[in-house]
Amino acid sequence: MHILITGAAGMLGRKVVARLVREGLAGREVSALTLVDVIVPDSPVGFLGHADCLSADLSTNSIAQQLIDGRPDVIFHLAAIVSGEAEADFEKGYRINLDSTRDLFEAIRHAHLADGYRPRVVFASSIAVMGAPLPYPISDTFHTTPLTSYGTQKAICELLLADYSRHGFLDGIGIRLPTICIRPGTPNKAASGFFSNILREPLVGKPAILPVPDSIRHWHTSPRSAVGFMIHAATMELGAVGPQRNLSMPGLSATVGEQIEALRRVAGDSAVALIRREPDATITRMCEGWAPGFAATRARALGFTAEDSFDQIIRAHIEDELHAPH
Amino acid sequence: MHILITGAAGMLGRKVVARLVREGLAGREVSALTLVDVIVPDSPVGFLGHADCLSADLSTNSIAQQLIDGRPDVIFHLAAIVSGEAEADFEKGYRINLDSTRDLFEAIRHAHLADGYRPRVVFASSIAVMGAPLPYPISDTFHTTPLTSYGTQKAICELLLADYSRHGFLDGIGIRLPTICIRPGTPNKAASGFFSNILREPLVGKPAILPVPDSIRHWHTSPRSAVGFMIHAATMELGAVGPQRNLSMPGLSATVGEQIEALRRVAGDSAVALIRREPDATITRMCEGWAPGFAATRARALGFTAEDSFDQIIRAHIEDELHAPH
Repeated sequence: MHILITGAAGMLGRKVVARLVREGLAGREVSALTLVDVIVPDSPVGFLGHADCLSADLSTNSIAQQLIDGRPDVIFHLAAIVSGEAEADFEKGYRINLDSTRDLFEAIRHAHLADGYRPRVVFASSIAVMGAPLPYPISDTFHTTPLTSYGTQKAICELLLADYSRHGFLDGIGIRLPTICIRPGTPNKAASGFFSNILREPLVGKPAILPVPDSIRHWHTSPRSAVGFMIHAATMELGAVGPQRNLSMPGLSATVGEQIEALRRVAGDSAVALIRREPDATITRMCEGWAPGFAATRARALGFTAEDSFDQIIRAHIEDELHAPH
Repeated sequence: MHILITGAAGMLGRKVVARLVREGLAGREVSALTLVDVIVPDSPVGFLGHADCLSADLSTNSIAQQLIDGRPDVIFHLAAIVSGEAEADFEKGYRINLDSTRDLFEAIRHAHLADGYRPRVVFASSIAVMGAPLPYPISDTFHTTPLTSYGTQKAICELLLADYSRHGFLDGIGIRLPTICIRPGTPNKAASGFFSNILREPLVGKPAILPVPDSIRHWHTSPRSAVGFMIHAATMELGAVGPQRNLSMPGLSATVGEQIEALRRVAGDSAVALIRREPDATITRMCEGWAPGFAATRARALGFTAEDSFDQIIRAHIEDELHAPH
């Protein structure tokens, strides 16, 4: 089995690769991995099959064609520029997040017309396809009215994925990822970064800044669960899914206060004491427009699972990031 | 005031032009009309301003640029290929219905960046952005999961319209038109044609074929109301609309049986006797997936109005098509 991963050097991409190397895909051996990103993805450690690690800008013309010439059986399409960059650079956002995806789908369609090729395509979408005002919980039939160009580009790619699937050109499934928490690494400048920072940093004895009130509610899942969504999406039977190919994933709806109490249970008062409250009106206002939580009824019925408590999310981080070999 | 209309030779385009010539736009005089379509639109009868009637394929490169060079104050973007053609010719559908729209929006964005240009753009969308299973009535927050490429293309253009508006490049409003009934002209081959045929033909003593059961419920508005939506969208204050720029229009939800009883009230049993029932399982199955009706709460609150009964729809047809000078 040959698997292509775009955005393979990103946080999620690297974790998907590691899991595929460790476990294969639903018991099937992975014989070839094509890993592509704007920086050269690391060669997959311990992988015995054939690995191609490519640095490429997917928005340049012939790349999609070239990737599809290898006829990968499964494609994880994770490549994107993030929300802030897509908002600041309108043209780059549309070029990378929309046009590259369409180029990839077009290359697949042409291959389908040539020889019946029809890969499974797992597309990483986002809860940013939703825009305020948002109810809680958000039902599976709630409309997509994004309030960012990033969310707009993801929503458009979802529509393309469904239409290309309906025509039989590819076998697509779109995964609306919750906010990933706890994001490993160092604090970044994303407005949503604090959700991870206030847990990750105190867990290793470092201070973290909390810019919003404890009452802010948001929608989270661990990196481990996000990888699980990707793997399940790549292997599940799509017969039961029908033409609506984009699914809001399960996750955990929690207030910042609930996050902090989970940290207290897992790591004690001394960890919580490292959180410094520095209210920021701009970030607070942004957060108030973000998704408080989804019903995710369809996804749960289709076998997608996530954490039930923030204690589990914190423990997953400790197991996967702090106790794991580096 | 300079107004650009794409798709100006179509049924709706011609009626919008006639109304603008007759009444101006919200009391403002129309000094220039640019009318464009794949066939040369008719020169607007009785128009005293400057009219440019152009035959052009909007999907060729420089046309959008050229149209925007004239800096029209208001743009009615009605051009599209229909559902059946977009489904049969995948590439043409995306080229005409999506890429042409994006080219137009991009030309506007570049003009905005050059000199602050920011026209009102009224985009003709469609209830085809919705796909079965559909509730009745469909709320304003129901998701767009189209089951045709045409509906997909309209849904994508809606997302672009909202994003370009949010960035301030244009002042857009998307109008999800109900099925137009009674469509003037001759019976066409569209699967939905019978909704009009069974009224229009008997009103002039001709037979018509009904391929579905009387129980089929669908969502209708007259050509007169559709023109009214366009004019209102071009002139309304957008402050109250906010970032969600695409509106499901009001209309009339009626079963085929209710249509027929309205025909009986307006034109008598002899007209109804001209309807010949020839059940068609394929058309019936398609109809069962179509929108039964919308709440249209936002649009009504924003001042959009439509007929309350099929009697009114039939009388509007008699006044506008059968008694009007030709």
